Order: sequence, then C-alpha cells, then structure tokens
Amino acid sequence: MKKIYIAGPEVFLPNARAQMDRKAALVRQYGFEPLCPGDLDIPAQKTKKAFGAAISHVNEGMMDAADGIVANLTPFRGEWADVGTVFELGYMCAAGKMVSAYSNVSEDHYQRLQRYYDGNIVQGADGYKRGPDGLSLEDFEMTDNLMLDGGVERRGGIVATHAAAKYELYTDLTAFEMCLKHLATMRDGRDQGLRPEELDASNDD
Amino acid sequence: MKKIYIAGPEVFLPNARAQMDRKAALVRQYGFEPLCPGDLDIPAQKTKKAFGAAISHVNEGMMDAADGIVANLTPFRGEWADVGTVFELGYMCAAGKMVSAYSNVSEDHYQRLQRYYDGNIVQGADGYKRGPDGLSLEDFEMTDNLMLDGGVERRGGIVATHAAAKYELYTDLTAFEMCLKHLATMRDGRDQGLRPEELDASNDD
Repeated sequence: MKKIYIAGPEVFLPNARAQMDRKAALVRQYGFEPLCPGDLDIPAQKTKKAFGAAISHVNEGMMDAADGIVANLTPFRGEWADVGTVFELGYMCAAGKMVSAYSNVSEDHYQRLQRYYDGNIVQGADGYKRGPDGLSLEDFEMTDNLMLDGGVERRGGIVATHAAAKYELYTDLTAFEMCLKHLATMRDGRDQGLRPEELDASNDD
Repeated sequence: MKKIYIAGPEVFLPNARAQMDRKAALVRQYGFEPLCPGDLDIPAQKTKKAFGAAISHVNEGMMDAADGIVANLTPFRGEWADVGTVFELGYMCAAGKMVSAYSNVSEDHYQRLQRYYDGNIVQGADGYKRGPDGLSLEDFEMTDNLMLDGGVERRGGIVATHAAAKYELYTDLTAFEMCLKHLATMRDGRDQGLRPEELDASNDD
C-alpha cells in the first residue's frame, strides 16, 4: 500500500493529535497508509536544540518512507504557508514523490499581497508591481510563491483551494480530500504506466 | 568547479540584479561557480500562470545542476523565511547537495514568536507554550522552524546569523560569507573523503 506523508501546521493545534487522526482516517479511505508527524516517539535529548533536531530527523525518515505528500499550505501566522510544511513539500518534490497541496484560503498569492500592503501597490517603469517597501510582487494566479505551485503542478499534482470558515481554517478537510482524490488518480495512473500529463489533472477549483 | 545556487528573497529587491551580482562575485572568491535565479531568460508564455511555472522550471533546473545552496532565511514579509527560498532549501536537502543557510536577523525563532504574539505566551498543563490563538510554539534555540535548521545541520551545513542594520537587511553579506566559508570547508573535506561530522562545523555564531 502506498504511503502518504501528512504535512501541515495542524501539528501546532491544541487538538493536534485528534486532527491528525481525522486526516489519517481519510487517507486510509483512499487506500493509502498515512504517515504523520507525531506518530513516533522522539527519543529524549540533552538540549532543546537536539530535541528539535531529533524531531526533524524522525519527520525526514517518514518522508523518505512515504510515496507521496499532501501539504497544507493554508496561511499560518501571516499571509504565507508554514515554512516547515514548505520545506517538506520541496523535499518531496526533489525526491520524485507524488505531491499535492492545498489551502483553506481561496484568495491567491497576489490577493493576499494586496491585503498585506493594504492595497498600496504600484506598477513601476520596469513593469514590476511593488509594495511601498520597493519589494516586487508575484502576480501569477498561484496559491503561493511560484516555486510551490510550479513544483507541484509540473509533477502532475494539484494545488486545491477551498474557502473554509474562519473557525475551521486548520480543520476543514474539503480541499485535503480533493488532494487525496487526485493522488489516488495519480497512483492508479502510475500503476497503469501513464505519465503525469496523461492524467486528468485539472488545476481549477 | 562546484556550483552553488543562490537562494533568497533578494530577487524581489528593486536592485535585485545588482545584489545578485555582488553575491555571485563573493561566491567566485570562494572558488565556486554561482547559479542565480534571474541568470537565464524565461521563455514567453501565453498566461501569467504559465510564466510563473516557467520560472519555477528554470530555477529547479539550476538547482539540479548545482552542487550546493546558500539559502537566505532572513524574515520576509513577516517573521519567517521566504517560502520560495524554503522550498528550495528542502529541495536541495532531499537531493543530497551541500546546504547552508543564514539570516540577517539574529533573534531566534522563539524570540520572533514572542514578538509576533506581543509576549502573550502561556505554558499550558500539557507542557507546550502557546500563543493566545492556542497554537503551540517551537522553542528549540533554532533560527527558524526545526525542519529547516535540523535539515541543514544534520547534513553538515551551518545556519549562520548576523544582526544586520535594518537598512541592510537584504543586502548585508556577512552571514552569507560565513556560509561560503563553511561550504568551502565542506567541499575540501569531501575532496579529502571526510564525512560531514569530521569537519569543523561550528554552529555557534
């Protein structure tokens, strides 16, 4: 049975374990084995830093054992995806695994930039849109930074979005399930020897 | 000559090309060939999204061609590293390349979390420190999320920090040069057949 690593900021929720269990149950419904951060005990360490490094080591080991990932890119402590999750997504892209991602916010990267800059965006003579700090903005109709969306979709994955209710921002599983459905199609296509571009990989939501 | 991919949010600066050229010159001083986002022309595309995807493709190609990375994790549009850079760091970790990272802010992850929550942090009965939103906090004496610092250091890399002046937040090259110095040591060690843990990989700053 193919294994799916569940990446996302829900590890920081007060009810992290319960939320992970909900996701794991849904992963099993789609015929995959779930691998979740927190599944394994972290061996005691002498320092805080060594303990953090041990968690990283265990999580990487689960990614190495996994055949794919669903990364929760819902904005976290700001307008962008959780950096730990993003690291894991890049890791799995390089490893040639099945990749999919989702966000429970439907506004795209550029719309969130407009909010971040309170709409103070100017298009300069060089053609770039910039905030008042002079930093240029990506406006590519993507969910997050182009490396994320580009990396996932080039590998046949989807970046699903769903406008979750605010109180369900990290618990709504609608877009998560869209990813699982897609990964099941990828898996079945691979089993039939299809290439990613031959799959029905609709990126629209 | 070993090639180093230069990852960081300076691609968004008004003087992005000039700053990349400064970094590239320093990379050459350490005997590496620099590979920078923006070095190659992006072929015209029919849609904004296709253009973004083409940039991602070109950048991934440069990473695949590179032997190592220096990732600029200086907080960007918030308290955390630029997600595009983080994706690239995860990618290069999985690819088994030489990795190093730096931040031009010397406060660690937990100190920045304290600022993010205006100091409103409470340690719960479960032992976890949490913000007023209930989300738990990492306190591992690391520069950013544990997947980043853990991934880099386990591979023999360093996460260098330097308290840059505010107006030089994205242009100060002190910590960047610390990474290059370290990568040169890694390269020379590898040439001598040493393992990462045999190198002088001081993670203190």
